[in-house]
Formats: sequence, C-alpha cells, structure tokens
Amino acid sequence: MKNKKYLRFWAALVLVLVWSAAGFAAGQDPLPSWRDGAVKKSVIGFVEKVTRQGGPEYMPPLKRIAVFDNDGTLWAEKPLYFPLFFALDRLNETAPNHPEWKNNPTVQAALSGDSSRLAKLGEKGILELIGLTRAGMTSREMREKVRAWPETTRHPQKRLRFVDMVYQPMLELLAFLRANGFKTYIVSGGGVDFIRAFSKKVYGIPCEQVIGSSLKNKWRNKDGAAEVVKLPQLNIINDKQIKTLNIDLVIGQRPLMAVGNSDGDLAMLQWTAAGAGPRYMMLLHHDDAQREFAYDRKSHVGRLDLALDQARQRGWTLVSMQRDFARIFEADKD
Amino acid sequence: MKNKKYLRFWAALVLVLVWSAAGFAAGQDPLPSWRDGAVKKSVIGFVEKVTRQGGPEYMPPLKRIAVFDNDGTLWAEKPLYFPLFFALDRLNETAPNHPEWKNNPTVQAALSGDSSRLAKLGEKGILELIGLTRAGMTSREMREKVRAWPETTRHPQKRLRFVDMVYQPMLELLAFLRANGFKTYIVSGGGVDFIRAFSKKVYGIPCEQVIGSSLKNKWRNKDGAAEVVKLPQLNIINDKQIKTLNIDLVIGQRPLMAVGNSDGDLAMLQWTAAGAGPRYMMLLHHDDAQREFAYDRKSHVGRLDLALDQARQRGWTLVSMQRDFARIFEADKD
Repeated sequence: MKNKKYLRFWAALVLVLVWSAAGFAAGQDPLPSWRDGAVKKSVIGFVEKVTRQGGPEYMPPLKRIAVFDNDGTLWAEKPLYFPLFFALDRLNETAPNHPEWKNNPTVQAALSGDSSRLAKLGEKGILELIGLTRAGMTSREMREKVRAWPETTRHPQKRLRFVDMVYQPMLELLAFLRANGFKTYIVSGGGVDFIRAFSKKVYGIPCEQVIGSSLKNKWRNKDGAAEVVKLPQLNIINDKQIKTLNIDLVIGQRPLMAVGNSDGDLAMLQWTAAGAGPRYMMLLHHDDAQREFAYDRKSHVGRLDLALDQARQRGWTLVSMQRDFARIFEADKD
Repeated sequence: MKNKKYLRFWAALVLVLVWSAAGFAAGQDPLPSWRDGAVKKSVIGFVEKVTRQGGPEYMPPLKRIAVFDNDGTLWAEKPLYFPLFFALDRLNETAPNHPEWKNNPTVQAALSGDSSRLAKLGEKGILELIGLTRAGMTSREMREKVRAWPETTRHPQKRLRFVDMVYQPMLELLAFLRANGFKTYIVSGGGVDFIRAFSKKVYGIPCEQVIGSSLKNKWRNKDGAAEVVKLPQLNIINDKQIKTLNIDLVIGQRPLMAVGNSDGDLAMLQWTAAGAGPRYMMLLHHDDAQREFAYDRKSHVGRLDLALDQARQRGWTLVSMQRDFARIFEADKD
C-alpha cells in the first residue's frame, strides 16, 4: 500500500511538471502549418469560444464532436481514391486464382488500367472489388492485409509513400481539437476496415471513431470458435446523405464541426450547419496544382461543385490550400 | 498570457490534491456492493492483470473495450422490458389520434393489457410501437420525450422509480472499469434513442457508446433546415448474433469483456470468449426472488437457458444475484 502512495506522489509531481511545461508552451502556435489569415483565425476563434467556460457559446466536452471526411480532406485523392490503388493491388494478387472474374465488368474495368474507366468505379466499385478478395475474412484479417500498405507503397506521381500523402495542416488541426476536448471522427466513403488499419497510427483516431462504407458481415461459429466474417456484398456506401444517417445512428448527435472537400460531404456540412448554437463548417478547396492538385467542379474524383457554391453563399470556411496551407505534406518546406 | 499560467498552476495544485486524496483512498473497496467471494475476486483480478504494465497479459487502453447488455444486466426487466412500459405510455397518449390503429395487431396486443400477449411483443414489437408514435421525429426529439420518463414513472410492483431499478453493483463495476482505462459500451436490444436519453446521467456512458435497435431514418432538407428523421420502419433488432455484427461494424474490434444475462447475449459472450489473450465473460443469473426476481430457462422475458449451460461448461463467470450482490438496488440495505 505504501509503495502505491509513493507512486502516486511521483506521478503527481511529473504531472505538475508536464502541465507547467505545457503552460509555458501555451504561447506556441497550435497550427504552425497553417498560414496566418482569416481561416486560421476563424478556426482557433471557434475552438476558443466553445471551450471558454462560462462564455455565451460554451459547449461541454460531450458535445464537442468533430467529423472529418478522409479522401481529399485528410489525405490526397488524386489521380484516384487511394483505396482503389489498394484494391487493385489486391485484385492483381488474387486474380490468377479466379478465372470466373473474366466475366465481371467491375473487375475488367479495374484491370484495364484505363484511368477514366478506373475513376468511374467510385467508392461502390472499390468496395465490390474488396468484397471479391475479402469474403470469409474477419475485420482483423482484413486490416492486417492493409496495415503495411500505406507505408510500403508509393503514390504514382508524387513518389511519396501513401502515408506521407496526409495533409500536415489537418494532422495539426486534429491534434488541436483533441487537446481542446473534442472527439475527432472520420466519416468517409472509404471502406471502414481499410481506414481503421492505420487511423490510430496516422491520425490518432481509434477504430471506434471511424465510420465508413462496409461489406455485409455474418456470424460463424465453427467448433466453438465464434467469428464475424465478411460477405462479398455491399452493406452501405457511406457517402452524401448516408453520412448524416450514419452519424445519427452511430454517434447519436449532430456534430459541432464538420470538415470535407467535395459534394459527397455537402449533406454532412448542411446538417451540421442547421444545428442550434455555434457550429463550424470547413471545406477544403484543392487549388494548388504545384504542390498538390487543382480540381473542383468537373472532377471525376472528389467533385466540388454544389458544395463550393453553398460554402460561399452561407459563409462556411473555405480553405484555399494554396493560400492557407504553409505546407501541404510533411515533406514540403515551409 | 500571465493569467493563463497562474490558472494552470492552480489547476495543477488542485489536481495534485485530488490525486493524493485518490491515493489515500486507494485501499478502499472499488466494488462495495459486491459480496466478497470468487466472483468479486475474479473480476478484480482480471482488471488488475490486463492493466499491469509489463505483465504477461497486459492490454493497452485501446483494447480495453467492455460491452454490457442493458435490460436485465444493468437494470431490471421484469415483469416486462422497461422500454415496453415506455412504449405503452406513448401509445396510450397517441392512440386517440389514430383510429386506423384499430386494425393493427401489434397495437391491439399492446393495448390489451394481457401480460402474456405483452411479453410476446418482444423487442421487435416494442420498436414497431415506437415507430408508429415517432415517425418524422429527430433523434433529439425522441430522446427529449424519453428523458424525464425513468425519473417520473414507477415500477408497477417494486414501486421504485425506473431510474432506481438499476443495479448498484453494476454501476460500481462500470465505474471501476472506466477508472482502469476501459471504454464501457451498452449493446442492447432496446431502442438506441431510448437508452441514449439517460445513458450518460444514469450509467456514465455517452450516447456514442450505446449500440441498440433502431428505426430506419431518412434525410430531410426543407428550406435549408437539414434534419435526419425517423421512419416508422424497423432498421435493425440488435439481439443475439446481430449484437456481434454491430460491435464489429461500430466498434471495430472484439471486446475484452462482455456482460449479459440471457440467451440474447450468448453470441456476444461466445465471440468475446473466442478472442486471443485474456477475455472476461460474465453472466448474471436472476435467482433472487426476494430482493428482485427469479427466472431463467422458461422465462418469456430474458430467457437464460443455453447461455446458462455454456457458462457452466466453459467456466464463464456466473453471478448469482442472491449470493454475490450485497445489495441490488441503491435503495436496498447492505
């Protein structure tokens, strides 16, 4: 018992030192990869006002839910959704064992290598492909297949590893929100097991805070070894309005903050905006052809058209990646 | 800036005092409403072993997921599931406006007052009734209808308020687990919005850690006021094997610990048991006719039959409420 008390004393002392150090560091910029300006000011201002105890717009931690799209919002999505690159790798690996895929138009489009046919596969096509290669696996087995992939595979144009194609400013924003009592969620059209394989390591987001598209699953209890395994059928495509239905079902409340980059995120932004009290809606505009990619209204992947007009009309925060990001990837110079 | 530093200093001081107080209190029994014996020893032992850093069975906080059934596990469920009492109150309130319900067999069974017909409604029937009275509402509106109910309505036999029909030993177990870095979830056949209305206040569990049965919902965007509203159709009955499919989808990993009281929880317990490494399966046996209710193999509500045999065969922790609970409800004397 005595030992335990001493342990607590030392733990408390360490805590005080860390806390004080944090205090002295409090003057530091929480978002160093964001350029000073209206956007950076507005997001810091929002966090300050909802966390100021006794303030008129104070929101308790339980309500501090922030939802982020993944593809095009937390990491890049050009020339094709990254999950598609993964699905293609898996498909090529598995195809020799499946002569019957010769008659499957989705598989044939995927294997064609024709980029416009590939772009049209969309999230539904990617999930179908994954279903074909993953039937009978558990979530854990699926994730183990994904785990090393973002660290070992490189982007075809940028030549960065996929894991290095995450946006440094967004990593800082996630950490800043969490340091202020927000619970950060990913709400993505990408496959939920794909994202969960690296969400904690890359984004600091645990698997139970990832909402994504999914395959149907089923219960199997063979020789007393109960398992939940994947079926090759789609369960849900977590895009557009479905994102809001899933947030309502899984999180159970309207977010305080929503961040996206395309028309697929519009419903989520609208639903967030329609909540009472302070809300924050942020839309990323990919307008930096030099450091990343420039695309919006007519893009096959990540089309930003209706949402761009709404953001302007309704005064949501529109992030110009060119203007507002001091660096995009960690590898970039400031 | 200076003010902020002082604030941190005082906050740190308070923290030290609280921490030290906790240290001196560390000798206290974390589960005072559990009688000393094999069951209490086993659950404390499990928590100690998975939290002992460097120990052979240490599990990091991310893996410390504990799932609890609600009806019959965290609060009573006799003579009928409590959500049914709520549904009946709503139904009686709304029925005069719905002459068309005269032809609805579920409504007629509910309004009959015949307890055997009521018991047979089950979770599906309850959800159907709720659907009828809740179509077009948002989750928030539904929860506001529920909120006061457990505090203002009394159990027909015990005469305790429903909110006082929660099991004091289970509240202590939830708190003990959370104090040891566990994330506690409710995984119930009850309606998710019903439980979310009071889960934080009563159990200390935030709404995003409640998985339950649900109605279908849909997106509505009238005059720019985006809402997610309920439809009168069932989405999912979160019972038996479906519990495991939903845990896999929402939480994304197999729990470390599962607690239930009926055959509806058997799949969840089997799935937990089949995981690698340390796992803890607990089954409540309602064997205390004097202080609560005694029922198992042939009960209409909360039948415990197959799971009782499995618990005995496989060495899961079987809690005798008569033997292991020093008190059942807070109102009980020790």
